[in-house]
Amino acid sequence: MKEDLQRLMEERNVDAVVGVAGHGSTALIKYLTNGSYISNGYMIYPRGTDPVLIVSGIEVGPARESGLEVHHFGEFDYMEISKQYADEPHKFRVELFRRILDRFGIKGNLLFYGNTDISGAYFFLNELAQSVPEIAIVNEGRDRLLYAATRTKSADEIEQMKLAARYTCEVMQEALDFIVECRTKDGVIYRGEKPLLIGDVKRHVRSELMKRGMEDSEDMIFAQGDDGGYPHMNGDDAEPLRLGAPIVFDLYPQQKGGGYFHDMTRTWCFGHAPDEVLEAYEQVLEIQERMNAAFTAGEKCSKYQEMVCDYFEERGHKTHRTDPESLEGYIHSLGHGVGLNIHESPMFGQHSQDVIEIGNVFTNEPGLYYPERGFGIRIEDTVYVKEDGTIERLTDFPKDLVYKVGP
Amino acid sequence: MKEDLQRLMEERNVDAVVGVAGHGSTALIKYLTNGSYISNGYMIYPRGTDPVLIVSGIEVGPARESGLEVHHFGEFDYMEISKQYADEPHKFRVELFRRILDRFGIKGNLLFYGNTDISGAYFFLNELAQSVPEIAIVNEGRDRLLYAATRTKSADEIEQMKLAARYTCEVMQEALDFIVECRTKDGVIYRGEKPLLIGDVKRHVRSELMKRGMEDSEDMIFAQGDDGGYPHMNGDDAEPLRLGAPIVFDLYPQQKGGGYFHDMTRTWCFGHAPDEVLEAYEQVLEIQERMNAAFTAGEKCSKYQEMVCDYFEERGHKTHRTDPESLEGYIHSLGHGVGLNIHESPMFGQHSQDVIEIGNVFTNEPGLYYPERGFGIRIEDTVYVKEDGTIERLTDFPKDLVYKVGP
Repeated sequence: MKEDLQRLMEERNVDAVVGVAGHGSTALIKYLTNGSYISNGYMIYPRGTDPVLIVSGIEVGPARESGLEVHHFGEFDYMEISKQYADEPHKFRVELFRRILDRFGIKGNLLFYGNTDISGAYFFLNELAQSVPEIAIVNEGRDRLLYAATRTKSADEIEQMKLAARYTCEVMQEALDFIVECRTKDGVIYRGEKPLLIGDVKRHVRSELMKRGMEDSEDMIFAQGDDGGYPHMNGDDAEPLRLGAPIVFDLYPQQKGGGYFHDMTRTWCFGHAPDEVLEAYEQVLEIQERMNAAFTAGEKCSKYQEMVCDYFEERGHKTHRTDPESLEGYIHSLGHGVGLNIHESPMFGQHSQDVIEIGNVFTNEPGLYYPERGFGIRIEDTVYVKEDGTIERLTDFPKDLVYKVGP
Repeated sequence: MKEDLQRLMEERNVDAVVGVAGHGSTALIKYLTNGSYISNGYMIYPRGTDPVLIVSGIEVGPARESGLEVHHFGEFDYMEISKQYADEPHKFRVELFRRILDRFGIKGNLLFYGNTDISGAYFFLNELAQSVPEIAIVNEGRDRLLYAATRTKSADEIEQMKLAARYTCEVMQEALDFIVECRTKDGVIYRGEKPLLIGDVKRHVRSELMKRGMEDSEDMIFAQGDDGGYPHMNGDDAEPLRLGAPIVFDLYPQQKGGGYFHDMTRTWCFGHAPDEVLEAYEQVLEIQERMNAAFTAGEKCSKYQEMVCDYFEERGHKTHRTDPESLEGYIHSLGHGVGLNIHESPMFGQHSQDVIEIGNVFTNEPGLYYPERGFGIRIEDTVYVKEDGTIERLTDFPKDLVYKVGP
């Protein structure tokens, strides 16, 4: 939880956490600034004192909404430095940042967070390390302080995530209703006189999300037949829905304006399901529900990945444990944390060092993939680890494979 | 244009361009891979040969849609390296990447692009530079090869950007209609029995964008009164629209799924406008239109910023040229390039080194900001530099300040 940041800094001998605003840092900056949207600036959180925000002059308005102490680049002779280093963007950034560190008396062990241009990050931090010897840029490895805070959700955060879960399930139901109210002709689903296209379903879903203050910010997956056999294929908007073709529908919308995500997947066959799909579906469902019942605080996340690999291997499927190159079988990790980011800590891969903690919110999403046999299957719930160390499902939606279309 | 990449590599003695997929790299990766959405992988474009994509196994499906040669991490003993470096994420990434460079015989001068975690970038590239002495990570300063390509749009890109412009103008008209059809009571705008809130207008705008395949991916600005006095304040959803209060409406939606942006701003007063607002508006409008007429290929971008500063300073306003700390007056740069990113090259600040080129698409957005006097004003068009070096406005929308509400 955010309240843990000071304690974690103390424990790990960190002198300040620095959040760098920029494209792709929205979630981080919102978290650290109590919801403010800043696209150009720094949030500095020194150990033992309150955080300050230093932003571009045009962002002073939104920065002040954070309730934090706000400064702007103009106070540090921004224009003068900008002129001096017109051709050397990294030196310009370092000189500005050096003045900021000076003003607030920051030195020692610093942690940097935020998404920025990869080359910019490399040259900026190297230049900084060289010209400001009083600071050390700490390599945290996999065990990052901020993620230790974000991955244990507070009661307020869980309330928001429950709301996001409820709305996402409602929208999935709207999508299902939209499809089963159609009619069928020659093995294809029709809405009125026209074939129902994947793009039509996605538009309907986005419209229903919007009514609930949510958005499809990361592009949902609605992948039919062989497309569903590739775990991250989004599905072809121009393709009509066909009877008997399994569809992987992975919906992971976010509260509008950079809020919390929910993440869930169902696999549907309209009209009927081929036998091999039915058989694979039963297996995915069985292990998915077994995992929902098995997760326990204190256990290593990788243990569950191993259990799922055991299960699928016993039934003759390849996994990345038996064949790391395989594009068929069970070929991804069991789950990942969810919050202000769609993927965050803890991770459930085979080599993950993470342990399930009270307050975690994560996905449980085993799947089987056979693109050359024309199908993929995935079932996914997002779950929450309660105070007593047991699991509560945030995703509340039926897990039927086959639905009838039409009257 | 993308076709310039090979020539630019030749001219600048670059051996390969490396695109790193990740959160915030969507636009870059779509550009380089002909529209594919990849969230975990590398695109390597060596000089003199075709690009290759190396992605996580679960992204092989979408990667193949690019038409490029596709490989996946499994081919490089991904799981084995992942186990070996379970605690050292940067060394893990370097070892995987080293094997990829080996396989494709890449060495020499490399350019890295993409948005990634700032610490990850720093430790990954430092480790890479140290353990693979055959490569050099080039510091391009401000003059970046990829941006030299992206900032000159091809005919196909201009077609897309014209479409985005048309839809954005249509939606702005829908927003205006939505407001002027209301009624007024005691200085407040009412829709039916309830005050019309900023949040209502934003919801209507998002719904109209969606009908046109566009989305408000970066959160529009609809800022009334003093909120409009801070250039980047988004506006308070809970606030009712008031008569006589100027509203800065900056709309910059994107084609759904990571396409092109359009960027335009209008300032509106409903019912009537206070005299000081009227006067400031006339000035912003005059200089905005003068700039639209003045832009010429071959001229330095900073020249136009100077002209706008001259104009406002002559009329008694502060600018960042006269007072770099000011939060009042004309306090930002005149414009920025627009494309698959909302902000890209060329830039129109005072110290910009950019020159207007044929094929550029950029904004023209002077403004005046007086938060303590309760208003801000900005007028913005996006323009395109045609083959003959003259300007075409992509934004086609009236520039009236005052609109009557109700019958």
